[in-house]
Amino acid sequence: MDARIVGWGHTPFGVHKDKSLENLIQEAAKEAIAMAGIEAGDIDAIWLGHFNAGLVPDGFASSLVLGLDDALRFKPATRVENACASGSAAIYAGRDAIRAGSARVVLVIGAEKMTDLDTKGVTRALASASSQAEESGVSFPQIFGRIASGYFGKYGDQSEVLARIAMKNHHNALANPLAQMQRELSFEFCNDVSDRNPMIAAPLRLTDCSLISDGAAAMVMVADDMADEFTHAVGFRAAVQVNDFLPMSRRDMTELTGARRAFSMAYNAAGISVGDLDVAEVHDCFTIAELMIYEAMGLAGPGDGHRLIKDGSVMRDGALAVNLSGGLKAKGHPVGATGVSMHVIAARQVTGTAGDMQKEGAALACVFNMGGSGVANYCSVLEAAK
Amino acid sequence: MDARIVGWGHTPFGVHKDKSLENLIQEAAKEAIAMAGIEAGDIDAIWLGHFNAGLVPDGFASSLVLGLDDALRFKPATRVENACASGSAAIYAGRDAIRAGSARVVLVIGAEKMTDLDTKGVTRALASASSQAEESGVSFPQIFGRIASGYFGKYGDQSEVLARIAMKNHHNALANPLAQMQRELSFEFCNDVSDRNPMIAAPLRLTDCSLISDGAAAMVMVADDMADEFTHAVGFRAAVQVNDFLPMSRRDMTELTGARRAFSMAYNAAGISVGDLDVAEVHDCFTIAELMIYEAMGLAGPGDGHRLIKDGSVMRDGALAVNLSGGLKAKGHPVGATGVSMHVIAARQVTGTAGDMQKEGAALACVFNMGGSGVANYCSVLEAAK
Repeated sequence: MDARIVGWGHTPFGVHKDKSLENLIQEAAKEAIAMAGIEAGDIDAIWLGHFNAGLVPDGFASSLVLGLDDALRFKPATRVENACASGSAAIYAGRDAIRAGSARVVLVIGAEKMTDLDTKGVTRALASASSQAEESGVSFPQIFGRIASGYFGKYGDQSEVLARIAMKNHHNALANPLAQMQRELSFEFCNDVSDRNPMIAAPLRLTDCSLISDGAAAMVMVADDMADEFTHAVGFRAAVQVNDFLPMSRRDMTELTGARRAFSMAYNAAGISVGDLDVAEVHDCFTIAELMIYEAMGLAGPGDGHRLIKDGSVMRDGALAVNLSGGLKAKGHPVGATGVSMHVIAARQVTGTAGDMQKEGAALACVFNMGGSGVANYCSVLEAAK
Repeated sequence: MDARIVGWGHTPFGVHKDKSLENLIQEAAKEAIAMAGIEAGDIDAIWLGHFNAGLVPDGFASSLVLGLDDALRFKPATRVENACASGSAAIYAGRDAIRAGSARVVLVIGAEKMTDLDTKGVTRALASASSQAEESGVSFPQIFGRIASGYFGKYGDQSEVLARIAMKNHHNALANPLAQMQRELSFEFCNDVSDRNPMIAAPLRLTDCSLISDGAAAMVMVADDMADEFTHAVGFRAAVQVNDFLPMSRRDMTELTGARRAFSMAYNAAGISVGDLDVAEVHDCFTIAELMIYEAMGLAGPGDGHRLIKDGSVMRDGALAVNLSGGLKAKGHPVGATGVSMHVIAARQVTGTAGDMQKEGAALACVFNMGGSGVANYCSVLEAAK
């Protein structure tokens, strides 16, 4: 028994001042339920991926979706958290509920409401996704600034490469109507060292950072023996989770060790090599992360990630198009929603329903969702299962 | 395939100024691993039940336990949250991982560090476990004060009954060396309407409220086909989760509707009636909750819960001893730890290892762990499985 993704929903990512966390959760859930063509009462269990950390006062969000439909009353509903990978954590828990025989129809939602806080508040909330014993007072951009500094120190300055990654993802987002920032950014702008593109956490500039966003995404998953009843069904060729130590001092920060391990285990489980993948949605919370993920994926050796962006391999028309959705960089990054959004985009790619984002003939899609600075690592390989 | 509980650990509950959340998590985990007689490297997956809501700055606690042993590096670790039922939520997710075949050996930990905040801070943090849309600004004791008022209004003043529940649980805690408050409280003291026993949220007085606590509990679970290798093995005759609407306005607050449903489903799943249970650990966050749980369990009809305490049925020597551990009332209530603690106590009862708490011949133990004011409801029936 395994799970099949048979419906999905996805709010626009962005600033939703008029919508509460509950509104966002219910909007995405409603869309996923409608697309799957089921009734709310058919759902056996609900999983919510949500980081929070004080971003909104709702410290107990699992049941918020129940308000959508009276038929959801009494359904088991559980929140799962793994920082920026909370969405994938919810998907994996929901999938296990189906594999366990505990549920036949599962609703998974990922959601975050971030713009109710000012930037300082968001920075403080996100900083809690690092080791408070060792990295207390260090902001999340500063953590990735340190990672970038270490990487640059070992492999040379990559600022131009990072600018090209930002440019690529913003270009891709033009094809994604759900993206927060559908705006072309030129290489010149992303590579600008003037105050037009201010330094956030050296060597990372504004254009290296993902966005502060509100949004939600949702999926309906069913037991595979029910899949024939649905228009679309997407299966997991692999779903691997690897957690690493939380304090940065206990990890080699010039590589994403846990990510590398997760990709390798996922390829093994799927019986594939990286060359078999058609598209990938990966966790570009900062451009340096995407660069290092190329290496963790096995697309390039240590320090050679820059080649992928220079030779075009990860561009829309390259061998492995990365972040056709615009990525966290341009699509937006409502923390708890991100992992579910990535899986939704991947599911759309392998079912040929990705609209203008579609990579023609995409059969195998990879998702890599990361919590913290490489602490929680989720790698999925999805394919159409009918 | 099902899960068997084969090891457990439990820190003393209380004020642990010298211990961090990480310390508490690791202490409980270490004890559970040692008792099971496994190596840390044998563990396939880790689940952490943890509420937080700003109680400590660690907004990303899943990987904290990895620091216990280098062999835990790269193990999948996930935090699960369902307010005061977060511990049971982690157990159920861990059990599903085993039933799904995703893991053969699972470590589950429940933990909370609450005394780092002052009482006002704790009150604010716990208040987030209610509907922020409808009950914003209402403290958690006030919510249960409203519930008690409604119950008293319908069924008459129950203050003396509540005082007897408090007295019972404090008396029981004398046999639990892990309890925060091992102190006999007289009926006179609990029923005192003077400032010696101040009103917290009318009609609930100080002695009606559970404690603010630090603590952790942990369990090792394995696939049932491995159980023969272990000294003890405890199985789930039932494990039922029911979530109700979050806003109180959408529920009848003179009964615990979701709880009643969870108990009924659990009895059906286990093929038992309430009369078959020997011991129960139930969620007495406030004494009024324990009274209403008697009714939800089916021990008494609506408004008749008081009979159980008056005729002694729920006392140590009664037909169904309730909260032999001292309950949340006297054992303490480190939110995320509570559900795991309840399952640990229940496992000890059915394996005859509960020490001075032991109910002779206890074969079937029930756990009822609740999140919010009857929103998340987890009901387990445990028995020795070897």
